[in-house]
Amino acid sequence: MALVVQKFGGTSVGDVEKIRHVARIIADAYDKGNKVVTVVSAMGKSTDHLVMLASQLCESPTGREYDALLATGEKVTTALLAMALNSMGYDAIGLNGEQAGIVTEDLFNRARILEIKTDKINKHLEKGTIVIVTGFQGIDSQGNITTLGRGGSDTSAVALAGALGAERCDIFTDVRGVFSTDPRIVPEAVKQDKMAYIEMMELARVGANVLHPRAVETARQADVMVCVRSTFDLDDPGTRVLGASIMELDRSVAGIACDDNQARLALTGVPDQPGIAAEVFGSLAEENISVDMIIQSLNTENTNDIAFTVSGTDLADAIRVLEKVKAHIGAKAISKDEAISKISIVGAGMIDRPGIAADMFRALAKARINIKMISTSEIKISCLVAQEQAKTAVQVIHDQFFPYAKEPAETLVNEKLGY
Amino acid sequence: MALVVQKFGGTSVGDVEKIRHVARIIADAYDKGNKVVTVVSAMGKSTDHLVMLASQLCESPTGREYDALLATGEKVTTALLAMALNSMGYDAIGLNGEQAGIVTEDLFNRARILEIKTDKINKHLEKGTIVIVTGFQGIDSQGNITTLGRGGSDTSAVALAGALGAERCDIFTDVRGVFSTDPRIVPEAVKQDKMAYIEMMELARVGANVLHPRAVETARQADVMVCVRSTFDLDDPGTRVLGASIMELDRSVAGIACDDNQARLALTGVPDQPGIAAEVFGSLAEENISVDMIIQSLNTENTNDIAFTVSGTDLADAIRVLEKVKAHIGAKAISKDEAISKISIVGAGMIDRPGIAADMFRALAKARINIKMISTSEIKISCLVAQEQAKTAVQVIHDQFFPYAKEPAETLVNEKLGY
Repeated sequence: MALVVQKFGGTSVGDVEKIRHVARIIADAYDKGNKVVTVVSAMGKSTDHLVMLASQLCESPTGREYDALLATGEKVTTALLAMALNSMGYDAIGLNGEQAGIVTEDLFNRARILEIKTDKINKHLEKGTIVIVTGFQGIDSQGNITTLGRGGSDTSAVALAGALGAERCDIFTDVRGVFSTDPRIVPEAVKQDKMAYIEMMELARVGANVLHPRAVETARQADVMVCVRSTFDLDDPGTRVLGASIMELDRSVAGIACDDNQARLALTGVPDQPGIAAEVFGSLAEENISVDMIIQSLNTENTNDIAFTVSGTDLADAIRVLEKVKAHIGAKAISKDEAISKISIVGAGMIDRPGIAADMFRALAKARINIKMISTSEIKISCLVAQEQAKTAVQVIHDQFFPYAKEPAETLVNEKLGY
Repeated sequence: MALVVQKFGGTSVGDVEKIRHVARIIADAYDKGNKVVTVVSAMGKSTDHLVMLASQLCESPTGREYDALLATGEKVTTALLAMALNSMGYDAIGLNGEQAGIVTEDLFNRARILEIKTDKINKHLEKGTIVIVTGFQGIDSQGNITTLGRGGSDTSAVALAGALGAERCDIFTDVRGVFSTDPRIVPEAVKQDKMAYIEMMELARVGANVLHPRAVETARQADVMVCVRSTFDLDDPGTRVLGASIMELDRSVAGIACDDNQARLALTGVPDQPGIAAEVFGSLAEENISVDMIIQSLNTENTNDIAFTVSGTDLADAIRVLEKVKAHIGAKAISKDEAISKISIVGAGMIDRPGIAADMFRALAKARINIKMISTSEIKISCLVAQEQAKTAVQVIHDQFFPYAKEPAETLVNEKLGY
């Protein structure tokens, strides 16, 4: 008898009808002879409502109260889903973070899971009971309710799957799986049947929004096979995310991501002295601002231009930091550019295949798209382009690496790829 | 330094602005040098919303899931209220039933509080922290969330006041206190400054809706002084509810209540044999139907008519029971009358004062109101009248026992009564 962990996000449990639908998915997995543990998020936009109430009452609520507040949303869904299963004749029980034995750090808003005491869940599973667990939350050593922050429910599910030794962790969402790129930009985007953990992580970091990198990292550490699947298209097996070593990496590029929430900052006329970069990026790090791409170029007058990208949400803070640093290091000016997008290709198969970067640059050049900055990692290449050219850039890069996707039949595509 | 327990009901915390207002009331009590523990209900109609969701998913949800669901409402208010106090610069912490140490029976929907482990609350109070506690809920011996049922938050507050040895328990609500009768029926109704526990209990049982009898009984057992006060009129000291022994009972009637949700049932032509009443009322008790007034009268043909009242909500069930019993005991017919109201006068001062009942009947007779049934207890007299005459009945009885209320100035009233 296999153990399956399932996770349903907010859109999948957005109303009573959808909760009933989710109950049928769970019942189906149970009827197939599985033990089932299901992790749920808060219903639709209910968390937004709580956030709005809190913001009206307190400018900066304490983490403790904020977590106690937000954690109620998942508790509601958990109880309702257990009721729905009960009314269908299934034995189901809802457990909150504490009852499920999810112990976290003594830290609010973004606690990490330290341990899952699985004896209570296991006792219910052994009796044949379906266990529904509140996602996104746990309890600290003092008995306070903690939440896990972004990607919290995905992380709850994957961590539970690891702790319980589950066969797999199904992440049900509103898309059919992980695509070669955003189908809203490139209609021919192909669903990937398999992805490596590291590919998923890189893709998430550069803008793909399917599975939080933290959940992927948890899965990698615990060696949990994650399936990203659609709540609304159960015939589709979705995308399996697993270790690269057990995958045949028969394609160099796994996915193409586009991140519009980027801004490019530059300090110009910086004296060419040692320690300058350390001061600039040290000051930014102190303010908790992540910097992505960095380029330093030498001018004729023996000064440097230092350019880098930050997240659009950090832009105002970053400029404030730079204003302070500017005078101190004797830089001439600060310039910014918000009308940019970062296009990234990710693929674990790149490691042994030279020429991938050149293929990407060639595709952009053919479309007369200027590359403003480039950065690379072992399994990722990112190019900064003008925002108005971003969609074309994604399209031509997709055409370059997924030319077969132009052909109509997806079955043919799958055959060719050998998935 | 005195310890005060306060309770705010759903209408008092119905929106963000009201929560802010409640926070100011709490802060005010704290600034006056009190230690403060505040118990809150769910915001406005939020519990109704949860009930509606549950009813759509499950006809008869398990008590466990239902309680876990409903208990989320108070958790939301608790966190928001603590945030509001924090934003005003006060040190406040929210505790759920478990964190507050409220241990209940292993029973859902209507668990009784068995014990309150006060060490955690006391630790916070000693540090000068304001403690906000979720009303209506606790935890059972298995770690399940339980709710206390009707009057739950009032009961939470009074039980906490008892366990913590509080000076008093302020129940904040949307009325200024307990009135001699419903001011919507009798505009001259006077607010009572003092009420005895037993009077409050009887009044609640016969239709007055201010404080749940269970909370009153908890207060009586723990000898907690309860103040019923208005959240929206803080200058009014409200009504103090306390032991009759420490009150001067200078008035015979404490209050007049009118209950329209009553129905009168009668079995006619019942053979005059022993055991008949036992069978009728035993069968009703088996179905959990409470019977209030009972009259048995002997007819000329040596048969009895048995008439009694039940709550309007139990009427259909009661008729179903009577249909079965009727054939078995050989009764002739069942009759029902829904157009009735039960008018009750309650007063601990009645005990030593004969003639109160006669005064009541005389007032009704003068107004040509027919009394259909009468029942009495030590501190209560109830009369059943036609529903269309109920308002007049309450008015004339009020005129009889509170004649001074006809005079305009309430200060004069208070002087006269010596409150």
